[in-house]
Amino acid sequence: MDYAPRPEDVRFLLDAVLGASQQLARLAPFAEVDADLQAQVLEQAATFVGEVIAPLQRDGDEIGCRLEGGQVHTPPGFAAAYQAFVEGGWPSLSAATEDGGQGLPAVLEAVLYEWLAGANHGFTMAPGLLHGAYECIRHHASDDLKARYLGKVATGEWLATMCLTEAHAGSDLGLVRTRAVPQANGCVRVSGTKIFISGGEHDLTPNIVHLVLCRLPDAPAGPKGLSLALVPKVLDDGARNAVQCERIEEKMGLHGSPTCVMRFDEATGWLVGEPGRGLAAMFVMMNAARLHVALQGIGLLDAAWQKAHAYAQERRQMVAPGADRASGPSLIAEHPAVARVLDTQRAWIDGGRLIAYRTALQLDIARHAEDAKAREAAQQWCSYITPVLKAACTQQGFDGASACLQVFGGHGYVREWGIEQILRDARVTMIYEGTNEIQAIDLLVRKVLPDVGAGFAATLLALRDELDASRDVDADAQRRLAQLRYLTTQIAMAAHAQPRLPYELADDYLRLVMVTLLAWAWARIEQAPGAGEAHARAAAAFRRWVLPEFDMRAAIIKKACEPQG
Amino acid sequence: MDYAPRPEDVRFLLDAVLGASQQLARLAPFAEVDADLQAQVLEQAATFVGEVIAPLQRDGDEIGCRLEGGQVHTPPGFAAAYQAFVEGGWPSLSAATEDGGQGLPAVLEAVLYEWLAGANHGFTMAPGLLHGAYECIRHHASDDLKARYLGKVATGEWLATMCLTEAHAGSDLGLVRTRAVPQANGCVRVSGTKIFISGGEHDLTPNIVHLVLCRLPDAPAGPKGLSLALVPKVLDDGARNAVQCERIEEKMGLHGSPTCVMRFDEATGWLVGEPGRGLAAMFVMMNAARLHVALQGIGLLDAAWQKAHAYAQERRQMVAPGADRASGPSLIAEHPAVARVLDTQRAWIDGGRLIAYRTALQLDIARHAEDAKAREAAQQWCSYITPVLKAACTQQGFDGASACLQVFGGHGYVREWGIEQILRDARVTMIYEGTNEIQAIDLLVRKVLPDVGAGFAATLLALRDELDASRDVDADAQRRLAQLRYLTTQIAMAAHAQPRLPYELADDYLRLVMVTLLAWAWARIEQAPGAGEAHARAAAAFRRWVLPEFDMRAAIIKKACEPQG
Repeated sequence: MDYAPRPEDVRFLLDAVLGASQQLARLAPFAEVDADLQAQVLEQAATFVGEVIAPLQRDGDEIGCRLEGGQVHTPPGFAAAYQAFVEGGWPSLSAATEDGGQGLPAVLEAVLYEWLAGANHGFTMAPGLLHGAYECIRHHASDDLKARYLGKVATGEWLATMCLTEAHAGSDLGLVRTRAVPQANGCVRVSGTKIFISGGEHDLTPNIVHLVLCRLPDAPAGPKGLSLALVPKVLDDGARNAVQCERIEEKMGLHGSPTCVMRFDEATGWLVGEPGRGLAAMFVMMNAARLHVALQGIGLLDAAWQKAHAYAQERRQMVAPGADRASGPSLIAEHPAVARVLDTQRAWIDGGRLIAYRTALQLDIARHAEDAKAREAAQQWCSYITPVLKAACTQQGFDGASACLQVFGGHGYVREWGIEQILRDARVTMIYEGTNEIQAIDLLVRKVLPDVGAGFAATLLALRDELDASRDVDADAQRRLAQLRYLTTQIAMAAHAQPRLPYELADDYLRLVMVTLLAWAWARIEQAPGAGEAHARAAAAFRRWVLPEFDMRAAIIKKACEPQG
Repeated sequence: MDYAPRPEDVRFLLDAVLGASQQLARLAPFAEVDADLQAQVLEQAATFVGEVIAPLQRDGDEIGCRLEGGQVHTPPGFAAAYQAFVEGGWPSLSAATEDGGQGLPAVLEAVLYEWLAGANHGFTMAPGLLHGAYECIRHHASDDLKARYLGKVATGEWLATMCLTEAHAGSDLGLVRTRAVPQANGCVRVSGTKIFISGGEHDLTPNIVHLVLCRLPDAPAGPKGLSLALVPKVLDDGARNAVQCERIEEKMGLHGSPTCVMRFDEATGWLVGEPGRGLAAMFVMMNAARLHVALQGIGLLDAAWQKAHAYAQERRQMVAPGADRASGPSLIAEHPAVARVLDTQRAWIDGGRLIAYRTALQLDIARHAEDAKAREAAQQWCSYITPVLKAACTQQGFDGASACLQVFGGHGYVREWGIEQILRDARVTMIYEGTNEIQAIDLLVRKVLPDVGAGFAATLLALRDELDASRDVDADAQRRLAQLRYLTTQIAMAAHAQPRLPYELADDYLRLVMVTLLAWAWARIEQAPGAGEAHARAAAAFRRWVLPEFDMRAAIIKKACEPQG
């Protein structure tokens, strides 16, 4: 009953639908990364995830992490598995070769992290921030810091954290109080308490590199006064730095990952990037991290789907409508209510994947395209679509896991089958890396509305052009893209008289965008060479059960934008 | 932060909106149960639930139940609290006075159980099946069995269980294998293993009365071969019967209630009702039980709302749109996304309550009205509306608790605030007493479609007649009632060509009915004397964010009913 990655499903989406190989071949660093090499990497990743990581899932939940004398012990097997993960070169999959990485595309790394989350969400948290930390150090740290930390972080020899949240500063990072006091020797002394630090302390690596959002003594209040400091657990001379794990949280799930309260007592650190530019440096980490959280939602949903699908192919209850009564009880997969759940979740999994993999490909293009305009367009895509994916895929990860749990009836509610763990683990993805409500506001208020939707519309043109208006489903998707554009304008106009309106409608707008993207995705998937019977069923389920949300969200938005009596 | 019942909220709905006192006064047994007496009962219930039951919630989850040597130990304080519950006469609230009960209306009992679930869902499971067992024994048991068991069950001195599910027989009870072999002395020997038995074993009462679905040796296969046996834990002579708790389940939540695997080894029992009529006898229990499960959903949602509301009135993050920047971060309650969650959940809580209390009143009418037609009409209402409430209120209990958890951000995911427990506890209500999918099929396929919706339409006429078409919101609700009727006919017609269709659409249909009922509820609540500012906000939230689901479900149904190419 362990989750098993299915590389053939993913390769169909990458090769037959997205033409990933052709796109990557145009980028200089990936000239050699042909379809065969990609397939090989994915096969190896699938084997590693399925054989090494997935079997640790249950103990990760039931035994979990414990804190003893300031030391965090991860669940049985995690340390050895992490060691194997490093030795396999997986942490450095997309890191540059000059930093000791594999130099492979971000899109392959995205697939790896989706699978890791499906196999073992708790374990995945450990290396989950590594790549973001690597990018952050690479782009913002001094040469000296790079020389000391970049290689170790690139290879995963040392793990990293993002220390943002404080007890009183969650969504509002402008309230962060942790102080960093510059010293004569160029370091800073960092003091403060951070909460919700995933992997703040553990026994997986000999050192941990904390990236800490903090405030210099003379800094202004609010987000513009924030700086970023690198604070290692262990200093260059081997001495322990003044960083302590004070507590690990008792959580609803994700017991395989220690969520730490970290106290910094004049800990030694060094600024990364300019003073007052801490949030900007952090954002490098956050965009990649948000895409990975979206992929966690998809991975968790796929894990839940695999369990429910297997159960529905074994369990018999009642004669399904239309089935032969003489054959006795039917497989529950044959009951319409169960088939609907399974097909609908597949529509979300493969549709969500296609959009997420497309976004990961855009990350590769944004980093490596020769043409500045192409880089800019790809960057724009990531900026708009990442919050949509983060919110929608994590919500579906939770809601869909709940629907899959329901397939088990009472058996779903007991630990034995492992499905309730997925639901508990998945819940956090709607919260961390910016709550889903923050994602919606980021999309609509911060990104789309400032230019009245012009930039967003331009970005979405690429999708319209990939559709063929002579086919019904394509034409339908195009019509929805146009309607989305119209509704964007409506919100922009109504916001003049009702300044709270965009904040009220942000969730509806984000859902509208996601359903539109899914309409594009299913038009593409269904017609790709090699699409199978399961794809046809998922496409039909999408149109019957998911797509109607579009009109509902559109109606909510239209009504709210009517002039107020 | 403990949940506290708010009797004034409930009395507004009962008195000002439903006119419960006038309706009850027309029923002979309640001639004396005036508004003052009702108010007094509710005040006492609120105090008891708030002071005695709510404080045990956390230990119920964290310490939970344990099985040692066949004996189940309930969480600290549960046994004493249950003793106080019995001494207060709460288990027997609506039992007949001749059986030792209080003879009060079912609607008051419904409120009590909603509050109990909000305060402590795990504790509530213990007495939760008592009233159903009482009704079952009262209507179906022999005089001898009644003399021995009815009084003890009526007063709650002994607790009761429903033993239905077996490992291979969940939703499909026709597969039940437990055998009952008649003996010369009139008893039966019951053998088999039942799973998911809430309170199958515990330390709350000296005896436990199991009502066991079983099969006589000569019984036909399937549901018509099922009989019901009463099997006590302790026999009349004080000897222990051959009933053992083999295991208690490790569950996602509801740790305060032991979910037992019960083994019967030729245990002594007696048939309740006719052989082969076991399901019919059980249904007496199940209809009342399903309404109570709906009320659990509402109670849990209200508990989640109370926590989120309190937190939103304390926590400050970011300046809300339109707020004065100079005053610093706003209360999160002032942020539109948070206000939307809180107002929408209130719309579900008070709207759901109104429909549930109306249904409980119909239970009273069905039992006690002098006029047979009035009894029949009330019975019809309960038959149609109970599955709607069970499915929709429990789904909202879970989804709404998740929305309330989100208000806490990361703090919602840790145990400390207690909100994640509500989410874990609430999940089971969507499964037990018939999964929500079974409820939907029960409504549409078994009850509505057989007469092409005529009986259901007749039942809903009562709602139409309570609305005043000269008011906009009333006219809107009436229009939806008419549309519901039209769509019912559409499904009935389309089902001829597509026999699976009603099963596929059952969930959409049930949701459509629920949103229609809520439209009626909010038209009534908003215009009742004494409706306040919070009601106006919830009514507006209902119309903005909940009501649009009606058109979405209607569109799904319409599209599915189109003739197939």
